[in-house]
Amino acid sequence: MAHLTDIEIAQAKELQHIKHIANKLQVREDDLEMYGKYKAKLPLSLIDENKIKENNLVLVTALTPTPAGEGKTTVSIGLTEGLNKVGKQATVVLREPSLGPVFGIKGGAAGGGYSQVVPMEDINLHFTGDFNAIEKANNLLSALIDNNLQSRTNNLNIDPRTILWKRVIDMNDRSLRQITIGLGGTANGIPREDGFNITPASEVMAILCMATSFDDLKERLGNIFIGFTFDKKPVFARDLKAQDAMAILLKDAVKPNLVQTLEENPAIIHGGPFANIAQGTNTIIATKMGLSLSNYVVTEAGFGADLGAEKFLNIKSQYAELNPKCVVLVATIRALRHHGGSLKEEYNTPSLERVENGFKNLEKHIENIRKFNIEPVVAINSFISDTEEEVQFVINACKSLGVQAVVSEGWAKGGEGTKNLAQAVIDVVENKATQYKPLYDWKSPVKEKIEKIAKEIYGADAVTYDKKAELNLRRIDRLGFNDFAVCMAKTQKSFSDNDKLIGRPKGFSVNVREIEIAGGAQFIIPILGKMMRMPGLPATPASENMTIDNNGVISGLS
Amino acid sequence: MAHLTDIEIAQAKELQHIKHIANKLQVREDDLEMYGKYKAKLPLSLIDENKIKENNLVLVTALTPTPAGEGKTTVSIGLTEGLNKVGKQATVVLREPSLGPVFGIKGGAAGGGYSQVVPMEDINLHFTGDFNAIEKANNLLSALIDNNLQSRTNNLNIDPRTILWKRVIDMNDRSLRQITIGLGGTANGIPREDGFNITPASEVMAILCMATSFDDLKERLGNIFIGFTFDKKPVFARDLKAQDAMAILLKDAVKPNLVQTLEENPAIIHGGPFANIAQGTNTIIATKMGLSLSNYVVTEAGFGADLGAEKFLNIKSQYAELNPKCVVLVATIRALRHHGGSLKEEYNTPSLERVENGFKNLEKHIENIRKFNIEPVVAINSFISDTEEEVQFVINACKSLGVQAVVSEGWAKGGEGTKNLAQAVIDVVENKATQYKPLYDWKSPVKEKIEKIAKEIYGADAVTYDKKAELNLRRIDRLGFNDFAVCMAKTQKSFSDNDKLIGRPKGFSVNVREIEIAGGAQFIIPILGKMMRMPGLPATPASENMTIDNNGVISGLS
Repeated sequence: MAHLTDIEIAQAKELQHIKHIANKLQVREDDLEMYGKYKAKLPLSLIDENKIKENNLVLVTALTPTPAGEGKTTVSIGLTEGLNKVGKQATVVLREPSLGPVFGIKGGAAGGGYSQVVPMEDINLHFTGDFNAIEKANNLLSALIDNNLQSRTNNLNIDPRTILWKRVIDMNDRSLRQITIGLGGTANGIPREDGFNITPASEVMAILCMATSFDDLKERLGNIFIGFTFDKKPVFARDLKAQDAMAILLKDAVKPNLVQTLEENPAIIHGGPFANIAQGTNTIIATKMGLSLSNYVVTEAGFGADLGAEKFLNIKSQYAELNPKCVVLVATIRALRHHGGSLKEEYNTPSLERVENGFKNLEKHIENIRKFNIEPVVAINSFISDTEEEVQFVINACKSLGVQAVVSEGWAKGGEGTKNLAQAVIDVVENKATQYKPLYDWKSPVKEKIEKIAKEIYGADAVTYDKKAELNLRRIDRLGFNDFAVCMAKTQKSFSDNDKLIGRPKGFSVNVREIEIAGGAQFIIPILGKMMRMPGLPATPASENMTIDNNGVISGLS
Repeated sequence: MAHLTDIEIAQAKELQHIKHIANKLQVREDDLEMYGKYKAKLPLSLIDENKIKENNLVLVTALTPTPAGEGKTTVSIGLTEGLNKVGKQATVVLREPSLGPVFGIKGGAAGGGYSQVVPMEDINLHFTGDFNAIEKANNLLSALIDNNLQSRTNNLNIDPRTILWKRVIDMNDRSLRQITIGLGGTANGIPREDGFNITPASEVMAILCMATSFDDLKERLGNIFIGFTFDKKPVFARDLKAQDAMAILLKDAVKPNLVQTLEENPAIIHGGPFANIAQGTNTIIATKMGLSLSNYVVTEAGFGADLGAEKFLNIKSQYAELNPKCVVLVATIRALRHHGGSLKEEYNTPSLERVENGFKNLEKHIENIRKFNIEPVVAINSFISDTEEEVQFVINACKSLGVQAVVSEGWAKGGEGTKNLAQAVIDVVENKATQYKPLYDWKSPVKEKIEKIAKEIYGADAVTYDKKAELNLRRIDRLGFNDFAVCMAKTQKSFSDNDKLIGRPKGFSVNVREIEIAGGAQFIIPILGKMMRMPGLPATPASENMTIDNNGVISGLS
């Protein structure tokens, strides 16, 4: 078989009308808000708290990834196909892809090979407009802030030098990272520094993903912390009476989106915060929707388990009272070689020695998951360059830790390739699941929460704080935000805050450079190292190789 | 009856499923791309060039308006209801509202009173995502330009000082008019001046509205003129290989949107360029769609007939080979008082003398329409403060010019209030329509085209050119763009380029400050006076008074 691209596989699929997919969830056609024939929004009235408690939540995460990613989305979709193949009623619940990376290097984010969600072009482009709505809500608040700065009748006396709220755009656009606005004279506002973040880094995105109802969303929007007045009083979005207008812009974005997998199983896709700077998982509402409608829900949290899974378990599950029953740790032989010392050009060169050496990274993630009282399953996401001895080593090494490791061939074979993985997951859910427990209580002191994550999850010996971070801690205390969740911003490339420390680093400390506040999301965000909230485009952007013909058929959108 | 707001009237309406509206146009449900139950996109395959020639196009325009507007959209919708009431099969084809003004002063733009298109909240908010798609396509090009500026391998040698392409956002946000981007060091791009226009002012919007097919759209996107290289060669979007990726972003936006009027008649709403700085009318594709599916199409062009209608007739109709058979000139007694000398606080104070004095404005517009070989009908959009003697004067004065003037009560009564207007329009279409002719040929010399509009439509004695405009003319000649249409940018408040000259000014000249180029839209845009491409918010933005409850019911969106 000639190698087909993801988009070719997706385009070859004859899609089912979305009403048939809804039917599998016992959702009537009349309850759907259709967006074309293959996408629909689900009304919040379908959420059922009793069902949520009865049904089974499975989280897919990964070892510390290489830059290409280890296929968490592909495994999540493949596992869902496999669960349905072995007779379970399963739904995959995922994040929405950001448009920015689509035109950069990364391409789409709707799975790969024979484990994809479709229509993949639409999911990777505007989809049902949720990111746009978030962007508009964010930027309306910015416009209201700048409008207030120069208002003569309505002025809140905001000190423009203290404004923390930035504009956003869902585009990889490095030129907008740092800008000066309000130039050109009195008609054009008050000159000040500003910048654009990419939309998945917006606090509005974080808020949408944390909201448990529409009222909760509105209240959180009002609680967004903007900055200070000249006499040092905090200013919130509610002071600009912005929350209702922002919520109006989000009235449809708050509803989860239903699409289908290549094997015609339900996929709910909703919200898309990045995992290195935000919570890295879909909306609480979507997870609850999945659990209200489906016996098994497979969901995903971004990057390695030290980022997405830690936040999923400490922030999302704790706040929303979810009880994940199994965690699937995605590993690839390629990434294990990397952690064992292979250079990028050697990733596809078999080396049992390096896999053995790199296993310590996976081992630490396994230990970490167990700290939440959850039993992990390891999914070895299969690649052509894997050798049998490398794979067998991982299976045996996991076995000696009491963990099942199963080869996952969802990319090449869809659900047929993940039936063993599905059985391993079912075994944990049905026979070994206990009540998960978070690692820290939100009510603990801030430094204690940060240290718990740094020491127990990252394996650090100590946490140091820059002077700016110490000042930020005092501000957090003054604002009464000590009880907020800690949403760490850290590189995805290492357990530590240093990209270079692969494997399972030891004897290191992490440094908190500064601590941001997301008043509406109820996060404090310690920044470890240099984190970027606006990516750039590569020298040859992916956009250059994309085409669309007169019939709307797209190519080059990988 | 207590006075209901527009949104209350709209919310009280029980909407028909959009498939029933499509059915009135003989469009099968299966051809629709639904966006919820009450909005749908229509595929371009429904366009039928033979039907377009057979069916009847009616353009609604106005006298020179006051800042509140004279109700063209309301009359267009009302007239459509009236035509259907008297037995014609009629569809209204309109522009999409911009989100920016919704949160400013203006509020929505979906008609008013009992002549509205619904669901009004959705139409006034994100609708089906077309504006967002335009914004993203525009801003992708911006990101590609800035990315190229600092590319080492792919550099086109663009001189950043010559870049004419700006970013856009659909928000009233004056602080973004003039900005500096690319600050903060080598990682953040090349510092340069930039600015954001509002999305309806984007050339991508103009292009979408001029495109006759998807291929035509793509070619026009490639032809966007960006600026010059350091060695003075012109740079186009195609040099950045941007056109396909931009077209991919526009693949759904190119399809017209179907909604319904309050009386359940079809409304096609698509594209929304402003009329003072752009062509001010919906897409050619939407007009052709309407004419393919409906015996009568009522459409609207922005601001007074010197702006929207002039461009509709010289640019759109000439390029798309449309043959408008009747022009409805909307007049209000209030606006006639204004042109007769009433101050703003006197607009609602009856004054026969001022109406008589202001009539000369309407008279000039009547003369102008006849220059296109089209017979006008005057619609007196009824207001409570109108007196019978004022109204009777207008009817008689029109009669003496051979023009029917009819009171239009669509706002208060819907189609029942516009049956007389409908009959007057039918009389012109069926008994008096001739072949319309444009005022100028695109192939004429540029200055000749500008002077023809200024002298014959505005009534100017002469056109003067600033030095910058003369330089721009030479650039246009060098680039080979002399055959482009002339899309005048002028105040909507006067026939002249001076806001203060109300009524029918005489003995004035207009001054061309500069001439912009829209290479993809195939326009040259002479700027008369100071035109703004990014509005601001008022001291108390409309957003402050908007609310939305937990059931999604919105108030304060007028």
